Amino acid sequence: MTSSRDMLFEQKLKEYEIDFEPEFRAGANYEAAVEYENEIYVSGQIPRVRGVIMATGRVGQDTTLEQARRGARISALRALAVMRQSLGSVDRIKKILHVTVYVQSAADFTQQSEVADAASEILYSVFAPDGGHTRTSVGVYQLPKNAAVEIDMIAAISGLD
Amino acid sequence: MTSSRDMLFEQKLKEYEIDFEPEFRAGANYEAAVEYENEIYVSGQIPRVRGVIMATGRVGQDTTLEQARRGARISALRALAVMRQSLGSVDRIKKILHVTVYVQSAADFTQQSEVADAASEILYSVFAPDGGHTRTSVGVYQLPKNAAVEIDMIAAISGLD
Amino acid sequence: MTSSRDMLFEQKLKEYEIDFEPEFRAGANYEAAVEYENEIYVSGQIPRVRGVIMATGRVGQDTTLEQARRGARISALRALAVMRQSLGSVDRIKKILHVTVYVQSAADFTQQSEVADAASEILYSVFAPDGGHTRTSVGVYQLPKNAAVEIDMIAAISGLD
Repeated sequence: MTSSRDMLFEQKLKEYEIDFEPEFRAGANYEAAVEYENEIYVSGQIPRVRGVIMATGRVGQDTTLEQARRGARISALRALAVMRQSLGSVDRIKKILHVTVYVQSAADFTQQSEVADAASEILYSVFAPDGGHTRTSVGVYQLPKNAAVEIDMIAAISGLD
Repeated sequence: MTSSRDMLFEQKLKEYEIDFEPEFRAGANYEAAVEYENEIYVSGQIPRVRGVIMATGRVGQDTTLEQARRGARISALRALAVMRQSLGSVDRIKKILHVTVYVQSAADFTQQSEVADAASEILYSVFAPDGGHTRTSVGVYQLPKNAAVEIDMIAAISGLD
Repeated sequence: MTSSRDMLFEQKLKEYEIDFEPEFRAGANYEAAVEYENEIYVSGQIPRVRGVIMATGRVGQDTTLEQARRGARISALRALAVMRQSLGSVDRIKKILHVTVYVQSAADFTQQSEVADAASEILYSVFAPDGGHTRTSVGVYQLPKNAAVEIDMIAAISGLD
């Protein structure tokens, strides 16, 4: 069954022309997502699409705020895609509880919140009218594979009917 | 009803002469706090009081350990204030589970724990004798609005009686 | 009773010649671990053994990937040791839910995942065949006491029989 949130999610992928790989795998020794009772944890997601990192470099120096926002959108959508793979449907996500947004920042780049807003907007669109979530955005010195942004999430989930 | 922890919290605000805005709002597309079942998540709090960031800059370079500790106190109190707004009373917080303290650090500043101690002391004061919590303190490269410190929290809460 | 996971944990300590102090204490005003209902939170662990930080400096500049991986192993084992002290046995850990790996990084060091792999390998060894966990690895600018790596964890636990 395709739910309304799954459709909203698919619409966002189309809107941003993102064609993720058909299956998400983490490295050899960790998981992209872990469900436990009524929660799901998602590993830190960089803006990777079929092996290509779509936003790299230090924001405010090597890359722009707009490129970092694009990276944040992809990371957020990838986190949702990972949860969908684990849960079978985005509809089983009841509430996004917390999102951490790490931004590879130039020494004087202080708009981490504006980068994170792009991820939050995705969540608001897909989970409206209950897209509210807490968020922490920080400026880090580097990220895996020189990614401009990395995002992890915790969400509350419903059981299988 | 004003509880004893609410009073301890108010005392701390007076002691440090902090007069927060009457209502806390996050940005347009996320929440300052999210309650879910028996937990509450708080978004990353910078030391903001009525729109002014009270501790900015790179600790150990642009600002001092003592100023950063002041910032950590304000961020911790702001996190409590945000939870109080959501819960109605600080007394509904049963246990602070985890606190992450991000410190905007100079290249050679390694006293992130001493900055975080100022936040932990606030929590011990308000929640004594059960103020124990886990904590992670790290030195980041930048923070939103050039804040010297940012703090988020997860707490266990009790239901409404 | 010594369980099989406790034995696997002890084997790892021997394999890496790590002889932790007999008792773990956090600072004066926070806890190394907090149990709450069916979860345990662990404070950020640096690679400390009996007061000595076994991996320090900026990875990719002051220290090597291999030294950082050694630090990640010690931090992960220390997190397990802290949980064992709190829970009485590693066997009470049902599932590692999330691990955050902070790596003190050089400006161009982008192998944070390879550092984190060393921690994940420890978890896989001790919790096989159910060692899967989510993970976030980021490159930070500094860490307490100039540690090369810091790791915190959340795990699901079982009750006392």
